[in-house]
Amino acid sequence: MFENKNTTPLSELGEFGLIDHLTKNFPLSHPSTIMGVGDDAAVMNYNEGEIVLTTDLLIEGIHFDLSYVPLKHLGYKAVMVNLSDVYAMNAHPTQITFSVAVSNRFPLEAMEELYSGIALACKNYKVDLVGGDTSSSTSGLTISVTALGQVKKEKITFREGAKPNDLLVVSGDLGGAYMGLQVMEREKEVFKVNPNNQPDLAPYTYCVERQLKPEARKDIVELLATLEMVPNAMIDISDGLSSEIFHLCKSSGTGCNVYEDKLPIDPQTSSTAAEFKINSSTAVFNGGEDYELLMAIKPDDFEKIKGHPLLTAIGHFTDQKEVCKMVTGLGQSIPLEAQGWSNF
Amino acid sequence: MFENKNTTPLSELGEFGLIDHLTKNFPLSHPSTIMGVGDDAAVMNYNEGEIVLTTDLLIEGIHFDLSYVPLKHLGYKAVMVNLSDVYAMNAHPTQITFSVAVSNRFPLEAMEELYSGIALACKNYKVDLVGGDTSSSTSGLTISVTALGQVKKEKITFREGAKPNDLLVVSGDLGGAYMGLQVMEREKEVFKVNPNNQPDLAPYTYCVERQLKPEARKDIVELLATLEMVPNAMIDISDGLSSEIFHLCKSSGTGCNVYEDKLPIDPQTSSTAAEFKINSSTAVFNGGEDYELLMAIKPDDFEKIKGHPLLTAIGHFTDQKEVCKMVTGLGQSIPLEAQGWSNF
Repeated sequence: MFENKNTTPLSELGEFGLIDHLTKNFPLSHPSTIMGVGDDAAVMNYNEGEIVLTTDLLIEGIHFDLSYVPLKHLGYKAVMVNLSDVYAMNAHPTQITFSVAVSNRFPLEAMEELYSGIALACKNYKVDLVGGDTSSSTSGLTISVTALGQVKKEKITFREGAKPNDLLVVSGDLGGAYMGLQVMEREKEVFKVNPNNQPDLAPYTYCVERQLKPEARKDIVELLATLEMVPNAMIDISDGLSSEIFHLCKSSGTGCNVYEDKLPIDPQTSSTAAEFKINSSTAVFNGGEDYELLMAIKPDDFEKIKGHPLLTAIGHFTDQKEVCKMVTGLGQSIPLEAQGWSNF
Repeated sequence: MFENKNTTPLSELGEFGLIDHLTKNFPLSHPSTIMGVGDDAAVMNYNEGEIVLTTDLLIEGIHFDLSYVPLKHLGYKAVMVNLSDVYAMNAHPTQITFSVAVSNRFPLEAMEELYSGIALACKNYKVDLVGGDTSSSTSGLTISVTALGQVKKEKITFREGAKPNDLLVVSGDLGGAYMGLQVMEREKEVFKVNPNNQPDLAPYTYCVERQLKPEARKDIVELLATLEMVPNAMIDISDGLSSEIFHLCKSSGTGCNVYEDKLPIDPQTSSTAAEFKINSSTAVFNGGEDYELLMAIKPDDFEKIKGHPLLTAIGHFTDQKEVCKMVTGLGQSIPLEAQGWSNF
């Protein structure tokens, strides 16, 4: 189709570059549109209160491998990925749509499994499935989810808004989902060689669960409300800490220092990383799929969250535009790379 | 994965059966949800005014063939398909999201072509692109579009609401898109045999344009407002007239008689159908992709639209639940079949 032209491969742009490139010339003209492309979710104002809207694609062979991901978990996770974006706006999810294209190798029972995971997610998070589309596909399974949420205007947290001296705070712990993926990839290879081998996943249950059945951080958004705090900026961690820090800093026009010895890492994540000879900081910075919330907190608000088991201050923002560094326990300062996770 | 179980092939359910089956156990619990799965779009109430939300998947090899569909037209049409659903609720579209998964055979320029079509659609219909996702795919091009729109509560037109003696009224003319598809499929076969053959599409321009560059009926929704009319029920024609009549009758608990000699068919559609030895009524009832609006009009409102060039009364609703018939010019009554277009 384009074989004879002087073309640019998509891989040169990466995912974020492609979105930026393709959407930069779309004007926003409707009075109800507050925020379009460029944040975790779109925001619209229809009279009172704001609505947020977000959407994600999940493609077999790119985002998931059905040889070890049960369809019920996949349905659940596909919803979580979107709810996580809604929470990253400090909003409460209200509705989702779920669309799916499947090849004829999937029988009805497979789709029922998938939808049982969606149903569980809807129940646990009190969101309504309000639409979707189904189609056949020529190969594999494709999922598209859209989520809407509600939030009061004064509580919305964009990616922009972080200020120098704000604290960089993260919920939960990091790197587990990536190590869970490594475990499952290894078991898949073992299974190929010896299908009779029974995998012992007991030492890795936490990491595997982080990968297969992540939870969106509803509790954190509720906690922020209880503490009467609105972060200056917030994002969810889907592509690895490094990538998300760069998003915050780029949008906010700031830099950031992160302290390696402050990173919240579960002991099982550390021990699994050691077994795989992976530096656990690498899993945290470049791994992704943690679905934790990363936020810029005003210094005055630090007292409110100090010592809270769900929140950890891991660094601070600086006035050095887009200069992001990791400071090691020995005081060494290492520039972060904005690699993130690219599927092109 | 499911090879050893007693399974049900998806083909047994068809597209509508699958959606019904998979979504029937999802309760609607959020107070802002007015209407979920089961109509052209979901409706939500956030204080004042209602929001409608709709989504569609378009899969290469299933919904489109890139050997004759230019990517710019594809982008435009993917938006139209969704806006048509918004207009079918008597609503005005306000925002869309556009997600795309592509294999690495597509260079950047291909994506630019696609997005130029989206941009044109957004401009012509005054809607904002507010989100989306891009991903690689292991094969082919997959598109997922979501559209939101606004409408006052008292003006929403659901599929249910048609009453016996209401007139069945359709906008524009029917069957053209299906004949355009036949023309392009034939030219593709000719091209395979003789790539030097230049197709002469001049006799088919209207049909080909109906297929490649459909327009959603913004003008009809505006006309209804001007005439101060709210149809009792409305649906857009994406899967062929027969299927859409059954949707209206099933939701409304009515039957319907359609008069074959009232069907609005463009002369070019008729002549192309004759050339292909297809009954033009078959193209209308079973063809699909017309993206016209089909509505139930109160008898008292008939005077307002009588003789209007954009609207045609083609039948009336009856109290015979889900009994849908076509009455021929000779007075013969033929039962319609609820086949529609199934992609499984």
